[in-house]
Amino acid sequence: MSNILVVHAHPEPKSFCTALATAAVEEFEARGDTVVVSDLYAQKFNPVASSDDFRSRANPDYLVYSLEQRNAQEHTSLGGDIKTEVDRVLAADTIVFVFPMFWFSTPAILKGWIDRVFLSGTFYGGKRIYGRASMRGKKAVAAVTLGGREHMFGVDALHGELARGMMRHFFQGTLGYVGFDVIEPFFGYHVPYCSNDDRAGILENWRDHLRSLDRKPVMNMPDLSRFDDVFRPLEA
Amino acid sequence: MSNILVVHAHPEPKSFCTALATAAVEEFEARGDTVVVSDLYAQKFNPVASSDDFRSRANPDYLVYSLEQRNAQEHTSLGGDIKTEVDRVLAADTIVFVFPMFWFSTPAILKGWIDRVFLSGTFYGGKRIYGRASMRGKKAVAAVTLGGREHMFGVDALHGELARGMMRHFFQGTLGYVGFDVIEPFFGYHVPYCSNDDRAGILENWRDHLRSLDRKPVMNMPDLSRFDDVFRPLEA
Repeated sequence: MSNILVVHAHPEPKSFCTALATAAVEEFEARGDTVVVSDLYAQKFNPVASSDDFRSRANPDYLVYSLEQRNAQEHTSLGGDIKTEVDRVLAADTIVFVFPMFWFSTPAILKGWIDRVFLSGTFYGGKRIYGRASMRGKKAVAAVTLGGREHMFGVDALHGELARGMMRHFFQGTLGYVGFDVIEPFFGYHVPYCSNDDRAGILENWRDHLRSLDRKPVMNMPDLSRFDDVFRPLEA
Repeated sequence: MSNILVVHAHPEPKSFCTALATAAVEEFEARGDTVVVSDLYAQKFNPVASSDDFRSRANPDYLVYSLEQRNAQEHTSLGGDIKTEVDRVLAADTIVFVFPMFWFSTPAILKGWIDRVFLSGTFYGGKRIYGRASMRGKKAVAAVTLGGREHMFGVDALHGELARGMMRHFFQGTLGYVGFDVIEPFFGYHVPYCSNDDRAGILENWRDHLRSLDRKPVMNMPDLSRFDDVFRPLEA
């Protein structure tokens, strides 16, 4: 039995994307896991990182957000909505992200959840990144819906690669950076335009993806042993 | 004389990033251009795309955000804050983005400005993307501050490439996608940790960058003539 956090961010509660989030809850509960859902639109989550996030400040005159994140943890002065989400992440063995791709990235409400919740200090440090970061041992998996078709992505395709190209900032630069084992993501292509039968097929494939999560490949992240103590590449 | 829009997004009004935005305003005004500033934190810009963005709806029962964007333009039912920003972009010959890199991307407040302002229909259409999209003939340039060092970015470096790798979703997938000529971006590395002298040097380099904007290289975008009418690669 595991603790699962589903982070969901779609503005339409009846969306297909929401159905993917609901399916994830069902699949994990069916196998006896404990599931918590952060439904960012339903929670009206505030995505704007600002000085309001700290009840007291290390430097009240000049905001360096990441330094205030560190100070706030030492002095328990972090805003309540952030604390709730941080605790959910720390309690989870696996985080499931379900969202529509907006501009080859997350919707802003989810981007701001990352900006405010993935605290400097707790999640990563200057040299504690990738395989040395704090989310080591936890898994992250994502279901992403998009309008584009699968043939638009790949090394020689229109937009280039998706998970390792356009969305590298998320899978490597965010989830991998803080140490998660990043499971090969699930993409629901062409969702607004495909048939209901096609969507039913995507939903079933997503359930299969989740049922075989333990056997799914994990994305490669940079191997820190290839870099020196300030992350310059070592001589070959 | 040109019309310039500076889009700025930093939570600290006294930040070095804000100094870069101010320098941009000064440089363009000094050469006689008209400059408008969208200071997203000062405006308390709402970054959350939602049904509230439309005063009337094509489909009140089910939100497909991009379809409602199109409907709202036909029926002038777009929320006032969005309309203001859209008009600013349409009036500009050059847009200057100034922001700190958060998670190899923009801060959420700027991500949401893109989500809400880069309207389907007005900025791009299903097949009107990249060189066929509507911002053709306008320039986009960015100054991005970050904590990382320059040696951490590149083909064989720790994080891989920056503008074409980690931030490809922004430079290609957003600015290039809607048709801007995307000027090679300016990065201010290691900003929170470097000396005041170093920062003064970065500021001067940014002013030089802006003064020579017309001679700066433009980033390559996908060549649509290499793809068929559904964007499959043509045979070589």
